[in-house]
Amino acid sequence: MTTVQTLSAAIIVIGNEILSGRTQDTNVQWIAEKLLDRGIRIMEVRIIPDIESKIISTVNELRTAYDYVFTTGGIGPTHDDITAESVAKAFGLPLVEDAEAVKTLSNYYSPDNLTPARRKMAQVPKGSALIPNPVSAAPGFHVENVFVLAGVPRIMRAMLDDVKDTLRQGPPILSNTVACMLGESTIAADLGALQGRYANVEIGSYPHYRGGMLGLSLVLRSIDPVLLDAATKELIEMIRKHGDEPRAISMRTGDKTA
Amino acid sequence: MTTVQTLSAAIIVIGNEILSGRTQDTNVQWIAEKLLDRGIRIMEVRIIPDIESKIISTVNELRTAYDYVFTTGGIGPTHDDITAESVAKAFGLPLVEDAEAVKTLSNYYSPDNLTPARRKMAQVPKGSALIPNPVSAAPGFHVENVFVLAGVPRIMRAMLDDVKDTLRQGPPILSNTVACMLGESTIAADLGALQGRYANVEIGSYPHYRGGMLGLSLVLRSIDPVLLDAATKELIEMIRKHGDEPRAISMRTGDKTA
Repeated sequence: MTTVQTLSAAIIVIGNEILSGRTQDTNVQWIAEKLLDRGIRIMEVRIIPDIESKIISTVNELRTAYDYVFTTGGIGPTHDDITAESVAKAFGLPLVEDAEAVKTLSNYYSPDNLTPARRKMAQVPKGSALIPNPVSAAPGFHVENVFVLAGVPRIMRAMLDDVKDTLRQGPPILSNTVACMLGESTIAADLGALQGRYANVEIGSYPHYRGGMLGLSLVLRSIDPVLLDAATKELIEMIRKHGDEPRAISMRTGDKTA
Repeated sequence: MTTVQTLSAAIIVIGNEILSGRTQDTNVQWIAEKLLDRGIRIMEVRIIPDIESKIISTVNELRTAYDYVFTTGGIGPTHDDITAESVAKAFGLPLVEDAEAVKTLSNYYSPDNLTPARRKMAQVPKGSALIPNPVSAAPGFHVENVFVLAGVPRIMRAMLDDVKDTLRQGPPILSNTVACMLGESTIAADLGALQGRYANVEIGSYPHYRGGMLGLSLVLRSIDPVLLDAATKELIEMIRKHGDEPRAISMRTGDKTA
């Protein structure tokens, strides 16, 4: 595999419900696609349980390894919501009540109903910036390069929309997809040779079943549109050479003539 | 959170297509549910790119930390399929051609069509046991406590079915689920107190939106059916105390009378 020069990020999914199989995560795919549009690439995802020591060690390992870290889950009012406290410990920061968050929660629940459990959701690591929650008031936050988002997809998406334009932008990662009905092994040698000729185009080969038929999607990614389109043209010729006609050629680059 | 005494496992999802958001992973949920039935609990998932050094370091970290490791993806014939070679390097084992795998592939493709790319799929770390692939012949394998499975869900599932009865069995992890329409913050204090009284029952609280309505699922897990049902009964009483009637009580334990 080749990698392009781009911004890197990791996602930490915090939640026993994903690890038990009870809940199908969909946040990873959503975040990955949104960040790719900004030239930020997810290089690693960790799904971990609601265990403080594990959250601390994972946050600390990943925040130094990647440009950005996004966490999802564990910011609610219940005993198993320990993300804010764990992230504070990871940074060695005190957990403090944020006055703005108290005000927002107080408006949402009414001041009389701002119980200690609800007020807990206003606690963030000292110096954090809040990330508004337009759905249920309890905010996310970010501290340095770590963004702490909700686990409920609808809330997580609103929070990500709020922060994504504040992130640095990498060079756009362009991609072309070419589908065919050839077996992977039929074109493996030629495909490897093509990858060898285009070190700055990452070529992935993904077999799939649709309607009982084995098909193949070939995905080319690069920050260089000229190289990307040249490699795509060669790939299309290669598929024809092996007796198939490329299907569903999807291009995200400017030049659609390949 | 409390943990139960059980067997532990990790999943390593190998594939740029998951990290880019192109493909929604469904293998984690499938594997987690199948293993839970055997008393094996997924304690961590890593999704990593097709980078050899990353695969090696991840396999080596997790195989010593957990009872079992399952990998998905990267065992095909193309240049981006580097799992077998990387796992061999992780164990310090030579990558060797397995005679049985060659025979299977030769039958599948016909001996004349067993190209080098196809033959590559017969290479496994020395001393591995093959895991048959009833769909497209190319086998998975396991070496010590690491099980290397395909990424295509249909093939992965067949491989997992093949190996799962060979795994050690932990005490069954029983669970009860109780749904209600209370806000999480309404019962957070009582729920925390309940968790405090039942150290050996893990209680998770999961808000969700369905049809525009915010609901709450409360999941109780334990290997002890008596404690589990006692905690569930208390939870149901707690929900009623807060003025709601529990909905969709799903029980996986023997005693359904709670």
